[in-house]
Amino acid sequence: MDIKAYVDDVSRKAKAASVLLRSIKANVKNRVLESVAELLKKEKAAITEANRRDYERGKQEGLSSAILDRLLLTDKRIEDMIRSVNEIAALEDPVGEIIGIRRPQGFLLEKVRIPMGVIAVIYESRPNVTIDAASLCLKSGNAVILKGGSDALESNKALTAIMQKALEKNGLPVNSVQLIERREHECVALLVKQSGYIDLVIPRGGEELIKSVVSEARVPVIKHYKGVCHLFVDEDADLKMAVEVVYNAKVQRPATCNALETLLVHQKISKKFLPMVAERLDGVELRGCARTRDILPGIESADEEDYYREYLDLILNVKVVDSLDEAIEHIEKYGTSHTDGILSRSISSIEAFVQRVDSAVVVVNASTRLSDGGVFGLGAEIGISTDKLHARGPMGIRELTSYKWVIRGNGDIRHL
Amino acid sequence: MDIKAYVDDVSRKAKAASVLLRSIKANVKNRVLESVAELLKKEKAAITEANRRDYERGKQEGLSSAILDRLLLTDKRIEDMIRSVNEIAALEDPVGEIIGIRRPQGFLLEKVRIPMGVIAVIYESRPNVTIDAASLCLKSGNAVILKGGSDALESNKALTAIMQKALEKNGLPVNSVQLIERREHECVALLVKQSGYIDLVIPRGGEELIKSVVSEARVPVIKHYKGVCHLFVDEDADLKMAVEVVYNAKVQRPATCNALETLLVHQKISKKFLPMVAERLDGVELRGCARTRDILPGIESADEEDYYREYLDLILNVKVVDSLDEAIEHIEKYGTSHTDGILSRSISSIEAFVQRVDSAVVVVNASTRLSDGGVFGLGAEIGISTDKLHARGPMGIRELTSYKWVIRGNGDIRHL
Repeated sequence: MDIKAYVDDVSRKAKAASVLLRSIKANVKNRVLESVAELLKKEKAAITEANRRDYERGKQEGLSSAILDRLLLTDKRIEDMIRSVNEIAALEDPVGEIIGIRRPQGFLLEKVRIPMGVIAVIYESRPNVTIDAASLCLKSGNAVILKGGSDALESNKALTAIMQKALEKNGLPVNSVQLIERREHECVALLVKQSGYIDLVIPRGGEELIKSVVSEARVPVIKHYKGVCHLFVDEDADLKMAVEVVYNAKVQRPATCNALETLLVHQKISKKFLPMVAERLDGVELRGCARTRDILPGIESADEEDYYREYLDLILNVKVVDSLDEAIEHIEKYGTSHTDGILSRSISSIEAFVQRVDSAVVVVNASTRLSDGGVFGLGAEIGISTDKLHARGPMGIRELTSYKWVIRGNGDIRHL
Repeated sequence: MDIKAYVDDVSRKAKAASVLLRSIKANVKNRVLESVAELLKKEKAAITEANRRDYERGKQEGLSSAILDRLLLTDKRIEDMIRSVNEIAALEDPVGEIIGIRRPQGFLLEKVRIPMGVIAVIYESRPNVTIDAASLCLKSGNAVILKGGSDALESNKALTAIMQKALEKNGLPVNSVQLIERREHECVALLVKQSGYIDLVIPRGGEELIKSVVSEARVPVIKHYKGVCHLFVDEDADLKMAVEVVYNAKVQRPATCNALETLLVHQKISKKFLPMVAERLDGVELRGCARTRDILPGIESADEEDYYREYLDLILNVKVVDSLDEAIEHIEKYGTSHTDGILSRSISSIEAFVQRVDSAVVVVNASTRLSDGGVFGLGAEIGISTDKLHARGPMGIRELTSYKWVIRGNGDIRHL
């Protein structure tokens, strides 16, 4: 089939499935998710085998260690997927929830949560997104079209097959979850133009992916842009606390979008703090500004481009700043409005930072790694929105829904 | 100035104003709105004079009576604007509202309402939108760029001057409210590409406007598409009630987007109901399907294209349908997901209609004219969204905001 016809076909099928999904009861959706969890356990060998093919090809193609790490499905990560599916099944059904109800003028007015319809999720290497995204979309009553990175195509096919088997077993349309199985990059441009069929596009990934989606899209997009995350250690910070928070933000899982990329240090405490943090960050490659390198001689120099980079690896930029203002300006210039924080005991510095830093998640005296739907209690997350429209920061199932208004009257008319 | 430079300049100024507006206190914003109300009263003669110039030009250019009606600023409409501004001033400030607060894992997590930033509103003839949109954006802490129809340019200039005078008087940046004062249609395409400066575009108007905005936009858009609104009179309807509701929906203010365009009548009651409703709709031009014309001989025939039309005038399509299913299919095909209703006493028909009709506002036994932010108690509305993302149906000031998450910890880190 020609590629445009293929994408049209997938989109049409998704729309048809979404009309049926709109009114599926919560218990049926949950039964599908329980089947998915069972099948993930039962078919672990087949998933691992498919993943090994992707991994070997990636290795031959010279993918970076960070990307290979994202691609890999270990036993532990498959167990995490299973746990995540079970957690999603346990969440309350958002569909049909009465968001608001009142009688503004005699008639009853309800604001009722409904599924969005069809959601396209476009993502890069990490194959667990396939199960997470599909489970979240199903739970919220949406049909989903998945377009994963071609690095992970075999893994994604195996995982999508499991989703579809579970759907079929429980009498739901298999087209509720579809994967774009073609490697052509063109698919993305074609997909994001399906305004008659697709209600929302969620791109997750690097700058190039996001830019190409935004410039091609005729469908609403919620961007999940890279996280160039900052922590600013203020002159009043608790330095011991700051060391541990910085360590956690950078090291605990560097390949995630909420990991730290740039540490900003107030000049007044830089001489004391930088050696402390450098010792704790043993094994992390530091790239410093000139003033940092005066204090920590021998580390690499951070150039202008480094400040824009999402390393996803054990590398950290370190910059000494003169003031809170300079820290905020740096974040405004190089940040991605994802997750940025301050370490301070000064109420006025904290409040100025919270007010002025225009990021989806602003963190005070805590690790950027806490910026997460699971940690926030939203259930598993579809991602972290760096947009301002509809949803900002970690997005759970409620953020995958829309609403309708229902007026229930008894002959009510308008007089003015 | 060349047109691109002009639009760039306006956008840059709006962005700069928005950064200041973010943290303006409620009482200052309200003082500006009070000044606007005073100035509208004081400068009524100048506004009326500017409006007269637009009206005369429109008349010479042969605009339809419906469009000329939308354009006209009578004393009553100026009073309505003043009332609307006062109502907006009286609304609670949405900015800073704590939407959610909890301690998911020890740290405090706040979800706080913030302004969107810069909003561009693109609209057609009605000049009161200038004051309404600017007031709503200001109240919600946003800078606004207005692009009204060139039919109303003189009126819009006079009204924007009043807004700016009130801003200046109260020490706020005049660029908080700017009007695109050029007539070139190109402005729209340039405006909706300002993704670095503009956070949201709201187009309100006909099909052509919306399509051109969507195809050009690089900025998120919430469409305010035309309302091709339907009422379905079911076989079980209270026919006397139905007559009055249909009359209100069509006649009370036909030039609005929530006025009725097509009446669908169940065949079982068509012989009885159609003569009743036709008598009440004396003065409305009826366009009927073949079966309608058998019952009401002498009326015009409704052709395929009529069913897609938003008349904004005293014209009504009438179609006899065999069943609830046929009514729903008609609405799905010709409707604009704006406002559609059923008149029935059958619970099962009502619930099927509410469940299956995918419109922003679904109306049961009431007039489509009730689909309105003011009636809903949202305060004045910026419009009625026909999109599913972010806001659906009538949009008030809350729908012009976004939110940020704030984590307040005490050295909290992530363990898993």
